[in-house]
Amino acid sequence: MTQFTFDAPTVIRVKRDGGRLSDEAIDWVIDAYTHGRVADEQMSALLMAIFLRGMDRGEISRWTFAMIASGERLEFSDLGRPTVDKHSTGGVGDKITIPLVPVVAACGAAVPQAAGRGLGHTGGTLDKLESIPGFTAEISKAQVRQQLSEIGAAIFAAGELAPADRKIYALRDVTGTVESLPLIASSVMSKKLAEGADALVLDVKVGRGAFLKTEDESRELAATMVELGLAHGVPTVAVLTDMDVPLGRTVGNALEVAESLEVLAGGGPDDVVELTVRLAGEMLALAGIDGRDPAETLRDGTAMDHFRALVTAQGGDVHAQLPIGAHSETVPAPRGGTMGDIDALAMGLAVWRLGAGRAAPGQPVQFGAGVRIHRRPGEPVSAGEPLFTLYTDTPERIPAAMGELDGAFSVVDEPPNPRPLIIDRIAR
Amino acid sequence: MTQFTFDAPTVIRVKRDGGRLSDEAIDWVIDAYTHGRVADEQMSALLMAIFLRGMDRGEISRWTFAMIASGERLEFSDLGRPTVDKHSTGGVGDKITIPLVPVVAACGAAVPQAAGRGLGHTGGTLDKLESIPGFTAEISKAQVRQQLSEIGAAIFAAGELAPADRKIYALRDVTGTVESLPLIASSVMSKKLAEGADALVLDVKVGRGAFLKTEDESRELAATMVELGLAHGVPTVAVLTDMDVPLGRTVGNALEVAESLEVLAGGGPDDVVELTVRLAGEMLALAGIDGRDPAETLRDGTAMDHFRALVTAQGGDVHAQLPIGAHSETVPAPRGGTMGDIDALAMGLAVWRLGAGRAAPGQPVQFGAGVRIHRRPGEPVSAGEPLFTLYTDTPERIPAAMGELDGAFSVVDEPPNPRPLIIDRIAR
Repeated sequence: MTQFTFDAPTVIRVKRDGGRLSDEAIDWVIDAYTHGRVADEQMSALLMAIFLRGMDRGEISRWTFAMIASGERLEFSDLGRPTVDKHSTGGVGDKITIPLVPVVAACGAAVPQAAGRGLGHTGGTLDKLESIPGFTAEISKAQVRQQLSEIGAAIFAAGELAPADRKIYALRDVTGTVESLPLIASSVMSKKLAEGADALVLDVKVGRGAFLKTEDESRELAATMVELGLAHGVPTVAVLTDMDVPLGRTVGNALEVAESLEVLAGGGPDDVVELTVRLAGEMLALAGIDGRDPAETLRDGTAMDHFRALVTAQGGDVHAQLPIGAHSETVPAPRGGTMGDIDALAMGLAVWRLGAGRAAPGQPVQFGAGVRIHRRPGEPVSAGEPLFTLYTDTPERIPAAMGELDGAFSVVDEPPNPRPLIIDRIAR
Repeated sequence: MTQFTFDAPTVIRVKRDGGRLSDEAIDWVIDAYTHGRVADEQMSALLMAIFLRGMDRGEISRWTFAMIASGERLEFSDLGRPTVDKHSTGGVGDKITIPLVPVVAACGAAVPQAAGRGLGHTGGTLDKLESIPGFTAEISKAQVRQQLSEIGAAIFAAGELAPADRKIYALRDVTGTVESLPLIASSVMSKKLAEGADALVLDVKVGRGAFLKTEDESRELAATMVELGLAHGVPTVAVLTDMDVPLGRTVGNALEVAESLEVLAGGGPDDVVELTVRLAGEMLALAGIDGRDPAETLRDGTAMDHFRALVTAQGGDVHAQLPIGAHSETVPAPRGGTMGDIDALAMGLAVWRLGAGRAAPGQPVQFGAGVRIHRRPGEPVSAGEPLFTLYTDTPERIPAAMGELDGAFSVVDEPPNPRPLIIDRIAR
């Protein structure tokens, strides 16, 4: 076998000059970075070169597999029921994981969900669930396995899965290299494939609140990730969904948990219910489970039972009150008419400024910070009535959040054309 | 006055997306990086974005001035004689500074030369001079001033001049961001303008051994640096010179000092003498000194006197033997004919592999490592005679150096067309 020797500047120069990284170069640089032999400043230069020069499908595939190989991979083939997971590329008000996981578990599949924290203007499932007093995502592999067997669900921090991705993800956040298709696709798929689920459904966001700004880019991202899953032997389907306006009526950690509980109790906003049921259907189909109507588990309480069992198993108190920001402020309707538009990106930034997200890695988030949306696009509005309520524990943050909302919504005369929530389905 | 607040990811994203960095953003990022508030991994991502997106003349100018402002600036207006300096963009066998500085000093100007160490395949003046036993470039500002007054010459390490450049230069070396016009121009000019000379002559290399590979790029680099000098009130002229083949008959630290001594003694290779005299003429013209023939100082020994005084003042022993690698190997002529071509880049890499340069910052170099070139392009060659002799203290390095030379020279039937050494002069 040929011996390859590499050094970081040479690998960086290849990509910088628009070349293709060989399999051996990718394997080397991911392994060397994981073990500290390539420095952060070298990896960040390479990430910027990848951001600006791109990677082809073959490079993305090898990069992803090298990140999986940097850590352990979970394996649930002896579980006695099919496993399936879902991942969203990140949106505003996107609490879908919280009702979805218990719905799918209630239908008989097991969901090993390695979840993340907030990034930029988008919230993270772990931050949201940790607003339930006592809940922890730091659970052992043995506990993950036990919960999957007994409840059909575990929502946990990625821990030792794809450690290369964990280092690279933190680096991207501070070096302006987040919004890159190859880097997003490889990051998502390395964590999700290391997680060991038998099948995978991807919710790829399109619109102002998504990380990639055009529908074409989101389609390419979806197709790339579907191919990565299949190349790894994991049946994978992507659904393109709208993220031009926020999902549901709440944005913020505890607020979104409360809204998820409404959905699990058979109520909640139409769009959250629709997307939950649609993604559950895709997951059950991939898992080979038929004859179960996911919407029924919301009506008959079995999804709520599974959610309570999940929270209890992970230390959470299902009877505890959810936190809410001590200070609030409302945004009144400037006129009467119909709610026109709400900019998802601006709303995400407003909630981030209220304290629900982080400005630096490892910062604590405010569980009770967020915005309640009283009128969604198409709903009638009376002049002066509250359109939004902002919550925070630190009222000095309110003016900056108000600034983000300035110009980010409209009240109009004619109801806007309703936007389809489900845009397309990408499979092969 | 408006208050500006910046953060590194935002500044990086502006350049990443092809935008222009504002004066305030440049001032902020250089100051914050100098003082450790912007991390290496953030600066390297910005450097790669600059490498791939470029900077306009205005950005380069502000970046340069911000790097000058990061440290102190020397000032010699009270010296009693005009000061003038020269900088080369770096070549193979380019020992011109060593004879040039004493020639110009012998003609009555003072040369405050803040010199550098080797970079990549090119050697550095400081590494070369330190092969003289006892010589040090780490001299105080007071000593620099005293030498300029008494001898007319000091060759010293940049020290506290443009510390931002020192940090960025080290970062570029390991992150694949060396060969960038804006980064080269700002690095050279920040050091040289901080050095405080009244006038500046730039030797901008063109050809395989130069950092920028095309003549167009080298011309643009020269024009950019001339404009930077003028914008700072320093009369500046650039000369474009050939670096397709090595300069002179030696490449390597002590070997190049020995060849420089030949030139100072009135002998030495034609091309080294020609370039030394031409650059000296440009420097004297800018310094307002006329009526002196620089070539005469090589013939009458006054340049040699100034060199000895310089070396002695900086602790060097002018009578000591120069080191030479303990092991040598010759490359014989594969056939008879005329020496055709010698690839400057390949020769630079061969000498680097013999131990004359560094593979990591701060490594010691071998003073005695290098190559003696017995036949230059156009000279007659007999089959089997030595074309090159390689020297090193570590003979295990010889095969790799031989590998660099493989295919890097030719022996031909017809003498090649002589190449002009001086390609153009750029002034405004």
